[in-house]
This record gives sequence, C-alpha cells and structure tokens, in this order.
Amino acid sequence: MPVGNVMVGQSGGPTSVINSSLVGVFKTAKDMGCAKVYGMRNGIEGLLSERYVDLSDYIRNDLDIELLKRTPSSFLGTCRYKLPEATDKPEVYDRLFDILKKLEIKHFFYIGGNDSMDTIKKLSNHAKDIGSDITFMGVPKTIDNDLAVTDHTPGFGSAAKYIASAMKEIIRDANTYGTDLITIVEVMGRNAGWLTGAAALSRTEDCAGPDLIYLPECPFEYDKFVSKIQEIKKYKNTITIAVSEGLKTPDGKYVCEANKAAVFEDSFGHKMLGGTALYLADAIAAETGIKSRGIVFSTLQRCASHIVSRRDITEAFTAGADAVQAALNGETGKMIIFERISNEPYQILTSSYDVNLIANIEKVVPQEWITDDNTYVSKEFEQYVRPLIIGELSPFMVDGLPRHLFIDK
Amino acid sequence: MPVGNVMVGQSGGPTSVINSSLVGVFKTAKDMGCAKVYGMRNGIEGLLSERYVDLSDYIRNDLDIELLKRTPSSFLGTCRYKLPEATDKPEVYDRLFDILKKLEIKHFFYIGGNDSMDTIKKLSNHAKDIGSDITFMGVPKTIDNDLAVTDHTPGFGSAAKYIASAMKEIIRDANTYGTDLITIVEVMGRNAGWLTGAAALSRTEDCAGPDLIYLPECPFEYDKFVSKIQEIKKYKNTITIAVSEGLKTPDGKYVCEANKAAVFEDSFGHKMLGGTALYLADAIAAETGIKSRGIVFSTLQRCASHIVSRRDITEAFTAGADAVQAALNGETGKMIIFERISNEPYQILTSSYDVNLIANIEKVVPQEWITDDNTYVSKEFEQYVRPLIIGELSPFMVDGLPRHLFIDK
Repeated sequence: MPVGNVMVGQSGGPTSVINSSLVGVFKTAKDMGCAKVYGMRNGIEGLLSERYVDLSDYIRNDLDIELLKRTPSSFLGTCRYKLPEATDKPEVYDRLFDILKKLEIKHFFYIGGNDSMDTIKKLSNHAKDIGSDITFMGVPKTIDNDLAVTDHTPGFGSAAKYIASAMKEIIRDANTYGTDLITIVEVMGRNAGWLTGAAALSRTEDCAGPDLIYLPECPFEYDKFVSKIQEIKKYKNTITIAVSEGLKTPDGKYVCEANKAAVFEDSFGHKMLGGTALYLADAIAAETGIKSRGIVFSTLQRCASHIVSRRDITEAFTAGADAVQAALNGETGKMIIFERISNEPYQILTSSYDVNLIANIEKVVPQEWITDDNTYVSKEFEQYVRPLIIGELSPFMVDGLPRHLFIDK
Repeated sequence: MPVGNVMVGQSGGPTSVINSSLVGVFKTAKDMGCAKVYGMRNGIEGLLSERYVDLSDYIRNDLDIELLKRTPSSFLGTCRYKLPEATDKPEVYDRLFDILKKLEIKHFFYIGGNDSMDTIKKLSNHAKDIGSDITFMGVPKTIDNDLAVTDHTPGFGSAAKYIASAMKEIIRDANTYGTDLITIVEVMGRNAGWLTGAAALSRTEDCAGPDLIYLPECPFEYDKFVSKIQEIKKYKNTITIAVSEGLKTPDGKYVCEANKAAVFEDSFGHKMLGGTALYLADAIAAETGIKSRGIVFSTLQRCASHIVSRRDITEAFTAGADAVQAALNGETGKMIIFERISNEPYQILTSSYDVNLIANIEKVVPQEWITDDNTYVSKEFEQYVRPLIIGELSPFMVDGLPRHLFIDK
C-alpha cells in the first residue's frame, strides 16, 4: 500500500475531544511516513471549495500536540453537509476526487458521528465504483454516544463527566437555602438518552444525585411527572430532575414544541430543540406553586474542555491512530470501534468495522437499562458509563484561563 | 478580651469560595484558642430556631479543611432572612442574644454580601445598646462584587474565571461551523455589571472575546443593539454578546420582563430575573433572520468550584481569618476589606471597616470603565479584574468527579 498524503476532516457537532482524534490521525500518519497531512476546513463542504491547510504549519511540535488535545470544538472547523447520492450529483464526486488526486491523497479520514459515517460510506463505495485506490476511514465522534456497533463513542465520556460534575455542583447549590425548590436540568441528546442518563453518575457518597431522570427513549407523560414530584415532595424539599432536550409526549410531539412558535430544522432534517427544561419548570411552578428553575447545559456540555475525561482523550487519540494504521493496511469503508472486554478492570479492544452497517443508525439506551416507571436509569447503565469519565487532563492555564490552539485565518 | 466560643454563619447567594472563608474563621478561631466554633444552619434564620452544629464534628482534620475549600455552595446552608429593626421586633433580638448567651458565644461572624452586612450592622448596634460584649464581624462574600469600600469581594474572582473560561469555550464552539450565528450569553448581576464585564477577560491571544458587552449600569436601547450587530455582521459571521440578567430599557423596565408574564420577588424585594438572553436571541433572529442562540450561565457561575481562582480561595480564607483576629482584638461592627496597593505585581492589604458605611450600598461599575457607546468595558476594567482570576486549585477527584464535604443531616 503506498503511504502517500493524508486528508483529514471534522464534521458534525464538536466535542471536547474531537481534536485529540485529529492529533491521533496527524501524529500516527507522520510517524508512519505519510508526507503531507492536510486538514479540510469545515469538513467536506470546505474541501469542495478547496479550503484546506497543511497541518504541519499549525502542529509544529509536541507542545502543540498536547495543546491541541486540550482545545475544544473542531480545530479545523466543521459542517453539517449531507453528501448527495453519486447517482444524483456525480459532479460533486468528480470534483472531490479531482481535488484528492491533485493533492496526491491516498488516505481520507473523517472524524464524526452518524451523518459523517454516511459520508465515508458514500465516498468509499464510490471509490470502489470508479476503481480509486484511496482509502476512506471513519473515526467515531459524538457526545450523544448513539453510534451503532461500537461500545461507546469518543466525546461521550467527557460530556458525561461535565454533566455529572455540574449536577453535583447544582444539587449542592439547590440544597443550600433549605427551602422548596424544583430544579429541571436540560441535557443534549435528541433521540438517545445516554447523556441525560449520565446525570445519574452524580449520585455518589457525597451527593444524592437527581431525583428523576427522563430519557427521550420513553414517552413523557406530564400527569405522571407531576404525580412523581408530589410524591417526592412529601419527604424532600429540593427536587432535581434531569430531562432530555428531546422529550416527546405520547402523541409524538416534542415537549418543547408546546413552548415555541417555530422549531427550526437543520440540513439533515433534524429539528433544532431547546426549551424543554424552561417549559417544564414554568409548568410545574404554575401547577404546584413550588418555586422552580430551569437550567440548560447548552453548548458547554460539548465544549467544556477544562474538565475532560482523560480516558476519553486517550481513546479519542487511539481511534484516530488506529484508523491510520487500518488505512495503511489497505482497509477502507470502515470505522474504528471499541469492544468492551470488562468493566472492572476496564478493558477495551479496538478494531475496524464496515461503515455500511453503522452509518445512519442511531443506538439508543436499551429499555432494560431504564427503570420500569421510566424515571431513572439502572445500575447497569451506571456501571457502563462510570469507567468512561475516569481521569483528568489539566488544561494549560495561561493568566488564569485555559489556553487553546487555533488557526489564525 | 475573652476568647470564648464562636458562632459563624453563611448568608445570601452561595459562591465557590464561601466555604474557604468558613475554613478561615474555623481554623483561625481554633488556632487562637476559641473552645467551640459553632456553625449556624441556614444563617440567622436557622439560628433563631436553634439550628447549629459544632464545626469540629465535621471539620476533623487538615484533609477536611482542604476538601471544604473545594466544596461549592454554603456548607452550613444559607438564608435570605431580613433581620427586622430592633425597635419593631425586640423579641427577635432577645431570642437571638439568649441563644448566644446560652452557648457562651463571644464572637459572631457572618459571611455574606450587602444584606448580610445589614444583619451585622443591626446586631452590633443592638449589642452596644444593651451593653453586650459579643463582637459581630462581617466577612465579605458575593460573586456580584458590589460591596462598597472594599477593592473587591471574595467569590467574584472565581465567578469571573468561570465566565471568562466558559466564554472562550463557547466562542470557539460558535466559530466552528463558519456559518452565521449570534450567541447571546446571560450573566448574573442584578444592578452591577462586574461579572458581565468579566466576559471581556476571554479576549486573549487565542480568542477574540465577545464582540459586545451590555452592563446593567447603562440603559439598554434595542435599536442601537440591532444597529451594532448589523455593523459587526459586515465583517464577521459569528457574533458573541455578553448581557447582564438585569438589563433595563431606558424607561426602567427589565428587558426580560418583556418576555415573562410574572417576575417574582424575593424577601428583600429583589426581582428574580432571567430570560434576557433568550428574549434577545429570539428578537434578534426575528429581526435579522440570522440564526441565534441564548446561553444562560445560571447557577453554575456561582457554584463551579471545579474551576476556582486560587487567589480568590486564598483571599476568601484570609478574610475569614482576619475577621477572627480583629474580633479577638475587640473589634465589632466591622467588615474585612481589601485595599489594592498595585496591579503589577498584584498586592493587597486587608483591614477592617465600619459596617454602617458598607451595608445596603451597591457598588456598580464606574462609568469611566465603560466605553462611550456603552458596549464594552475599558482596559482599566480588565486590568482590575485579571489579577483576581489567577491560579488554580485542583478539585479532589474521586472516581472522575469532584469530591465535596457535606453535612449528613
């Protein structure tokens, strides 16, 4: 297999560790003798406009490598571009393969989630169709943890660690007045409740954790929600509840839609959500007369690199590194996956897997990991997530603030 | 002066370092020979119901001391109880002084902000009136930094550090798509814009910082706000704006009131605010057609002990420690204040100051530290705040999460 040049891109919503995967691709490709490692700006969409950089211009030494691991959001920029089918728009594919040919690219890596794996699937299939020897490999990334086949996904562990840490702090704050208070915390995850469930990790020796957890996997019944709160209220005056942004009523409507005149859609047709916690906080206050507050973790849960999981950082790097090794062994149309060997001690194996069987599939929380009344996650859920938040990677602090690596144009 | 027993309480909104002041009081009182250090549960309100603990039961060794410094929110619980005038309700004072007498208290410390200093003022004045020799000292605390006379207030530096760090992460996230986006971030501070202004600290070598900052000190004119955004939009596609929760229109109405049917008031008559960022984000999206998002830092800015300022922790401890020393020297009716000697190198002196000249006064950002068009803070503002966010104190991490000290009842 010729070593050749490398093209790497980042796609979809950023995470706190997506740049660790980028470093994994860059460093491994360089170590294995690849001449040039190009980074596409804003994913495949930028590449189609020939926007790319030579990563060696920005990652100049080992300090830069460590700094980039500590930099949140997508260093190269990202996109939400849906690659059309080759049969519909052959000119897009012609243009893309022309650019790759011009740059003498032999290996193409795309770090992303479901939608990004759709891109890898289409490009690798097209390469076969036209007899191109360029390899196309996917590097898993998503805070949502909803990629199929792999045990878990880089980005999830750090988001879970942020959510559990912030929940501990919020619960401590909520208890300080000793007066009645209902706190509803909104967590990301459109259809998969992995992140919302991670709020349960805040239940530790020094914290009771949230009282209720509502995942998007289960229909949200408002009346039962009110009854549950009134039940807990009998023995506890502060109640903390984690809710998914994607909660739906039994008739399939988003809870937050009751609160918003318009719900926007992105280019994949995903509804842009938000407002579930504030809506429920207002509703429950009106219903019960108890003071309430809604807290939305919002963007911070995917970019709080100041409190990442070291294990997540390491695994994100490994996913990038392994993708390069697989590609240089001639593999294509695959994504790196993790297989869990054991929880205690935590052990995983990595391998590569056919991206056709991963793309566009969403892995949700299995029903057996949700309690019967749909208001919490099970012990097994906790045992699955807890190893993923272990370990810290201190930010590089300059003048009291975390330092990041950036592209100055 | 007899050493005697000590009573200490925490009042008002919690901060990330209020427990460091508690440790400062506890450790110094113990070191100076005070027999018992009692902590009132939920401030003066709890004490009136004889709810207190012997702090030695909970702070048992040096590890507990370090753990308590790293614990957010008020360890003892807090309250927003407004002490009536002694002439109106003498029975409240009689009851309080009876309890103090029963416990052989010689020194009373209250860690809090404006309203808490009002309590110290009333109690110390009453002690004089009745010839009690109990000393009453205030230990400054507020993320809002709005206490008069003192250069700054413990709690502010850590909140400022959180805000500036989170702003850096949010701005990096906002830039990743390369598409048009207006992000409006809401910061606490009802009447004083110190915390909102601290968003400017995110402007560093690796971050452009927010584009606009709106403080509650200046009337908020919506039309000018729109014009400013349209001006910036000509050369920049992502715009980030920090706004105070307390922004008011020129006719004196809260901006968020336009969005809320009801605005609640707490027992001091302060309006409970919230909704400014979401309201403005919706309004600007409707006005300009540009995608927008509102982010509310909410509770986390006052309880994110996982990213405190070490200088703030140290100064909070010092404020508690110095209050004890002053009290044991016979001082009463005073609050510990900081005087800044120089910015570079950063040097402060601490002393004590008549609480009658501090209580119930709000210190706002001076007009000369706000730019002429009311859309940013000056260089002098930044030079004032930056030293306060310096240094880190790593949380004690257990199984991937910050550990806290707590009272188990």
